Amino acid sequence: MLITKANGEQEEFDDNKLKQSLKRSGAEKRVADYITEHVVSELKDGMSTEQIYSHAFDLLKKEEQDPAAARYSLKRAVLDLGPSGFSFEDFVSEIYREKGYKVMTGTMVDGKCASHEVDILAHSKDHTFAGEIKFHNKLGFKTGLRVALYVFARFDDLRNNRDNHEEDYKIDDGFLITNTKFTKNAEKYAKCVGLSLTGWNYPEKGGLQDLIEETSLHPITCLTSLSNEEKKKLLDNKLVLCRSIKGNHKVLLKHGISPDRAQNIIKEASVLCQPGTGV
Amino acid sequence: MLITKANGEQEEFDDNKLKQSLKRSGAEKRVADYITEHVVSELKDGMSTEQIYSHAFDLLKKEEQDPAAARYSLKRAVLDLGPSGFSFEDFVSEIYREKGYKVMTGTMVDGKCASHEVDILAHSKDHTFAGEIKFHNKLGFKTGLRVALYVFARFDDLRNNRDNHEEDYKIDDGFLITNTKFTKNAEKYAKCVGLSLTGWNYPEKGGLQDLIEETSLHPITCLTSLSNEEKKKLLDNKLVLCRSIKGNHKVLLKHGISPDRAQNIIKEASVLCQPGTGV
Repeated sequence: MLITKANGEQEEFDDNKLKQSLKRSGAEKRVADYITEHVVSELKDGMSTEQIYSHAFDLLKKEEQDPAAARYSLKRAVLDLGPSGFSFEDFVSEIYREKGYKVMTGTMVDGKCASHEVDILAHSKDHTFAGEIKFHNKLGFKTGLRVALYVFARFDDLRNNRDNHEEDYKIDDGFLITNTKFTKNAEKYAKCVGLSLTGWNYPEKGGLQDLIEETSLHPITCLTSLSNEEKKKLLDNKLVLCRSIKGNHKVLLKHGISPDRAQNIIKEASVLCQPGTGV
Repeated sequence: MLITKANGEQEEFDDNKLKQSLKRSGAEKRVADYITEHVVSELKDGMSTEQIYSHAFDLLKKEEQDPAAARYSLKRAVLDLGPSGFSFEDFVSEIYREKGYKVMTGTMVDGKCASHEVDILAHSKDHTFAGEIKFHNKLGFKTGLRVALYVFARFDDLRNNRDNHEEDYKIDDGFLITNTKFTKNAEKYAKCVGLSLTGWNYPEKGGLQDLIEETSLHPITCLTSLSNEEKKKLLDNKLVLCRSIKGNHKVLLKHGISPDRAQNIIKEASVLCQPGTGV
């Protein structure tokens, strides 16, 4: 059975892949088996991964407690951070702060040959990196060679001016951080020149998904108990992380959510945002 | 009197600039003076350079033989090569062939770290360069630092693999060739890393305008005696250069142009496409 991927390509449907992905979200084996079987029985040739995903997600929501469904939708939740890319930049900054870095965003730094706006400049005791943050709001989009090329050239120019900077600005590494996957070409080039890539499930260990799980910085867009309008309202008010509402009834009430629902939302956030619950 | 540039910025109107530009197009001093005076008398605050240019161009068409007007409109003629950018790539290739290079387009070349599609690979006895060709169909657009960064990174990767290539592919230089101007940042960066930029009036000597004049490779979109539909038809049939129609009644008749008009068009093309008539 051929299904259609988000980038328009077709591939053979693999029920094992679906099952694994459900299990990684915390679904019990029994539930994952049942959902996969159900989805397979209704599979039609040419169906999109989007449709299959939605279907499995709906079933998971019915079967399991909310956090498993929320976790399953992490990629989508990051997409929902918004097309402006603004919140995603904030979000990435929070991740590196959580990992012990001092983080500045949108800083102008002089390279040897030009001044560059550095999306995220992160400094810890023994490591300083300049990161370019690329947000894409389309499933199936891959960040390609051209972006890797200019990010590397920028980093190289910054590194070439290393000696003229104070400690916080002495850049050791260049990072390209995105919510998408990368093309094979971009991966090959980056590995060869020594540019660090962080994307969706890339690298295998330490990709964006792992970073979120490791730091428990799930975005509020994960929460199935919030409506889309409520998510938008909270994001607009810079409430990006589950963490910010976890112990905080007040902030939810302030944004017009009823006490009953607030309790449910906080319950979901609390179960979800625990380190190492493991997607 | 403040006028509005194509990029939206305002600047003081400079009648000397207009006069010089008319003269560079081959207008006699008397005519340039008269046109400038006329344009100034009808100048209104906030008028766009586009409007002022059109006005002067119309007057020049009335006053002078066509070639001066055609030459005056060279920048626009290059813009008219089409938004696909395809014809502009052909056009740039022709320029370098005329300058004695062997030219290949759209070639895949292995760098040290990745394979790159090189828009134009030009090889002469003592010089081989890889060029990226950027076409923009909007007046006032400037090619910026980010493009210069990725073009340099690409060139650098190609150069790092120099020793593994045959003579025709041993790349000495990287070029970024465009029909626009560059931002100051892009110019500064390119100069510092050693990337060659060729754009509109950049560098001061040897910019695109100079290359066209030097090689007499005026695009047919310069010709005032052709209608827009005729230009489109000829371009679609890969007739990009005045040169290709100069001595060639047949090709014009073949595309539905009457013998009388064909004669006029060829006359305009012949006067226009003479080396060193000097814009």
